[in-house]
Amino acid sequence: MLDKTPTARVQAFLDRFGGALEAGRIDEAVNMFAEECYWRDLVTFTWNLKTAEGRSEVRDMLEAQLALTKPTAWQVAEGEEASEADGVTQAWITFETAVARGYGLIRLKDGLIWTLLTTMVELKGHEEKSGFSRPLGAKHGINPGGKTWKEEREEEAATLGYTKQPYVVIIGGGQGGIALGARLRQLGVPTIIVERNDRPGDSWRKRYKSLCLHDPVWYDHLPYIDFPKNWPVFAPKDKIGDWLEMYTKVMELNYWTRSTARSAKWDEANKEWVVTVDRDGEEVVLRPKQLVFATGMSGKANIPQFKGADRFAGEQHHSSKHPGPDGYKGKKVVVIGSNNSAHDICAALYEAGVDVTMVQRSTTHIVRSEPLMEHGLGALYSEEAVAGGMTTAKADLIFASLPYRIMHTFQKPIYDKIREIDADFYAALEKAGFRLDFGADGSGLFMKYLRRGSGYYIDIGASQLIIDGKIKLAAGQVEEITETSVKLDTGVEIPADVIVYATGYGSMNGWVADLIDQQTADKVGKVWGLGSDTPKDPGPWEGEQRNMWKPTQQEALWFHGGNLHQSRHYSQFLSLQLKARMEGIPTPVYGLQQVHHKG
Amino acid sequence: MLDKTPTARVQAFLDRFGGALEAGRIDEAVNMFAEECYWRDLVTFTWNLKTAEGRSEVRDMLEAQLALTKPTAWQVAEGEEASEADGVTQAWITFETAVARGYGLIRLKDGLIWTLLTTMVELKGHEEKSGFSRPLGAKHGINPGGKTWKEEREEEAATLGYTKQPYVVIIGGGQGGIALGARLRQLGVPTIIVERNDRPGDSWRKRYKSLCLHDPVWYDHLPYIDFPKNWPVFAPKDKIGDWLEMYTKVMELNYWTRSTARSAKWDEANKEWVVTVDRDGEEVVLRPKQLVFATGMSGKANIPQFKGADRFAGEQHHSSKHPGPDGYKGKKVVVIGSNNSAHDICAALYEAGVDVTMVQRSTTHIVRSEPLMEHGLGALYSEEAVAGGMTTAKADLIFASLPYRIMHTFQKPIYDKIREIDADFYAALEKAGFRLDFGADGSGLFMKYLRRGSGYYIDIGASQLIIDGKIKLAAGQVEEITETSVKLDTGVEIPADVIVYATGYGSMNGWVADLIDQQTADKVGKVWGLGSDTPKDPGPWEGEQRNMWKPTQQEALWFHGGNLHQSRHYSQFLSLQLKARMEGIPTPVYGLQQVHHKG
Repeated sequence: MLDKTPTARVQAFLDRFGGALEAGRIDEAVNMFAEECYWRDLVTFTWNLKTAEGRSEVRDMLEAQLALTKPTAWQVAEGEEASEADGVTQAWITFETAVARGYGLIRLKDGLIWTLLTTMVELKGHEEKSGFSRPLGAKHGINPGGKTWKEEREEEAATLGYTKQPYVVIIGGGQGGIALGARLRQLGVPTIIVERNDRPGDSWRKRYKSLCLHDPVWYDHLPYIDFPKNWPVFAPKDKIGDWLEMYTKVMELNYWTRSTARSAKWDEANKEWVVTVDRDGEEVVLRPKQLVFATGMSGKANIPQFKGADRFAGEQHHSSKHPGPDGYKGKKVVVIGSNNSAHDICAALYEAGVDVTMVQRSTTHIVRSEPLMEHGLGALYSEEAVAGGMTTAKADLIFASLPYRIMHTFQKPIYDKIREIDADFYAALEKAGFRLDFGADGSGLFMKYLRRGSGYYIDIGASQLIIDGKIKLAAGQVEEITETSVKLDTGVEIPADVIVYATGYGSMNGWVADLIDQQTADKVGKVWGLGSDTPKDPGPWEGEQRNMWKPTQQEALWFHGGNLHQSRHYSQFLSLQLKARMEGIPTPVYGLQQVHHKG
Repeated sequence: MLDKTPTARVQAFLDRFGGALEAGRIDEAVNMFAEECYWRDLVTFTWNLKTAEGRSEVRDMLEAQLALTKPTAWQVAEGEEASEADGVTQAWITFETAVARGYGLIRLKDGLIWTLLTTMVELKGHEEKSGFSRPLGAKHGINPGGKTWKEEREEEAATLGYTKQPYVVIIGGGQGGIALGARLRQLGVPTIIVERNDRPGDSWRKRYKSLCLHDPVWYDHLPYIDFPKNWPVFAPKDKIGDWLEMYTKVMELNYWTRSTARSAKWDEANKEWVVTVDRDGEEVVLRPKQLVFATGMSGKANIPQFKGADRFAGEQHHSSKHPGPDGYKGKKVVVIGSNNSAHDICAALYEAGVDVTMVQRSTTHIVRSEPLMEHGLGALYSEEAVAGGMTTAKADLIFASLPYRIMHTFQKPIYDKIREIDADFYAALEKAGFRLDFGADGSGLFMKYLRRGSGYYIDIGASQLIIDGKIKLAAGQVEEITETSVKLDTGVEIPADVIVYATGYGSMNGWVADLIDQQTADKVGKVWGLGSDTPKDPGPWEGEQRNMWKPTQQEALWFHGGNLHQSRHYSQFLSLQLKARMEGIPTPVYGLQQVHHKG
């Protein structure tokens, strides 16, 4: 063995592994995994997003799925070489199943599988028309009575949802709905996106005016069309809005603006949804086979019921409705909350000369943007990574290959490092009275995002305003709101003309309760979170994001969303699940998640 | 020498060449060129688009320009290897001048330069903000009173052209104006694009409805944002229209729609143009330092003055105004002309069940799309080329490196091959009475395009309709138009309810006569063509496209346009010429073209 290259050794391993699987020798295959092992499958074996942890879960999954999956042709991916470092051999791999082509990443330790990622690239016979198979466009030859591209698009727009039913309806046309819609279009799945705003991108445009993306451009590409090289690192909200609008148009999405879904009901007899939509004043009843909520992973705005809030004499609104600082000059604004939105809103108000106080109710994780980009994302998503040959697709897969169970152990050293680098900064914040945390186990921002989607601020300047006392800070719980002030349990009373509730969002199944019914919302349960048994992410351990991008307890009901990275990456697997169902390809779901929390 | 790699040999050659140039030893440098040699320079040595042909022209250019250019650092480009084939050694090269960084392609024969292409990549100190230097976007830190991206864009839109003058005004917002505008924006050159239509892309949308691009997608990318992999090979006109509209938006161009330039006048005292624009009914006077005509390389519609045309009882219009076949059912339509537009219009009319006759007045070059793509463009612009590692930038430079003087010799074998492959097709066309040519010297379509921009049809199906007699064909000159017919000099009289003049376009300086005055139009002279002394491209030999993308005899007046390829590629060099002037960088023009033809 020693004279072989790493690539040859991995290929020999794959030959044995593939042979065992093809012959149905599950014991042999399981024994090729290490005791500590993680097999993350994105819809190739499981028709689910699922991580099998340890040999017994691997065995269980194979016993349930192997016979139908029929995997073959395990290869080190063409043009790739295996690499070795720190006792781990790593290689990009390709394989096939009975119905699909897959791509993955394998890591071996001591000749056994430590991590295995298997993802679906395409369904055989249903490949996207791209590259060599792109459409011709011009209709060469003669087609008497033939329709032009424009006429066909117009006909589609006029008939879909009326005389022809879409296979999928997506509720919500932000980045999630748009990215998924683009993939479904390429897969030939008739889809309507229902969006309440006037234009694609308005879900960004309508936010507070200083908002910019907190994730950098390399992390944010949509499928099919990358941002150009001149695109800003952190795009302003209106610029992202314009990009989404452009993208929606050129990707030919059936995107219904000024449209609100009023109700949805599962028709068990016909195995379809009955979705009543108010389309710019007209009631339209859609009957899709699949319904996707892409209403924002954050769910519905959460406004705590504070005593006395109803008698407050001034203006009060949730951060999602905050119009920005213009018009508040000379007023006293109290912002309740201390996460991203609270910081951004406070900074913009301060900049506009407004008297602003932030009420911090619980500890908050703060990390400055620069070290976060450098240490947190730089290896995969940065100009340096691009220059080093890293592609978005590879970065996404490497990211996806790190098992959720142990991800925090990779994250913690990053934040230990950042705490060291920024020790003075953190000391100054604490001196100003700001109460910090770095996550329940010190694993920092990204784990907080995955576990609860909240509890942090990526600092782009507001923290210095707090350190300098320019944004006033008050710590404590809100005890009461009076006509003119916010009273805390510390006895502090803060005069207020305006209150902004930067108090976060509920679980996405809140939208299900509104649109369908509470029973279905409860049946589906809490959306988002890993079951990490940390604040706002109660156990038991789920091992994957709850209910996101995968089958739920309600037939034909799906959730899609998250940041741009997730909207891009997971739309691939959700679109393939939907396409397979449309084509009648068997999709036996392994390990459908149980529901432990209602919301 | 023989033990060295080609790369090392080229580097050794470049070391000697660069040394001679740096030391001002022009004799030595000239002697490193072969007797037959071509040095094509795109604005690095000449501040012009210029091909020096033969040693004496190379010497002349160097004597005039070397001292100011100060070239240094000639290197085989990083990451590239020289190649050898058929006695030619070829290598990508980089170099610098006093003010710029350059990229080029060198071909050596017997150790001497056969062809040399030198192109400007960027001006030192004025690089585009891209990749590692892309803008940050979010304004980190605190900017009291700071404006958001949207507010800055709105302020720019409100002030540019009113309280602030643009440096450049571009007349015409088709692909040419848009591509140039995008580059100027990235270079920080304040620019307004003046476009008469309602929306960007309308110059495509308003053409006849069956129109699709005749060039394939790989040839058509705009700067900065490539078409995605699912984009059709030959995009329908409305789809290209949508792309241009979205591109204009996301590239943040200052694009004035519903705007028509009424007059322009050179103010010699202030060294600026006075351009009066009707902006959607409002008169605005612009005072740019530079004026670019991007009104379509085809120039103004050309309608021959046929006897009796004024008494024709039916509808008659130029092909550029043709609305498509709808509404002509049951009518007899005569299309005068036999080039691309004539064929497309006739085919669409036939498909819609209209009685249509094509009048062929002179021989026409026909080439079917498939062999043209395969043999004509495939090596540089195709999915195969992309798969083989060819980039758009490289393909453009290889294309640009082939000297115009000998380009037809590379083209002729392609068309010889196509004639052989399609012998039956051509025989059938001739049998149907269609009169063919392959260009004056058999060099085919691309040379016709470069020389005269007309005289051909890329067949996507209409030729078969002519072969089958479904599009009726009449050969001859138009002698007279009666109230109800077109009479030819052959004695044939064709009944007509509608006449479409697919009779081409004049020279672009026709627009100059309209907007400025005839004197300036005459001073500038004919636009387009190489001086090949073939039909519609009279000599003497120019060696570059007349007046395109380079200084003209009228100070601060420029022409830009052509197909998408040219709009993309040459906008790079025109934008750098304009930027250099704005920054006050010396731009001594070598070899400003003489004018031999007025239009």
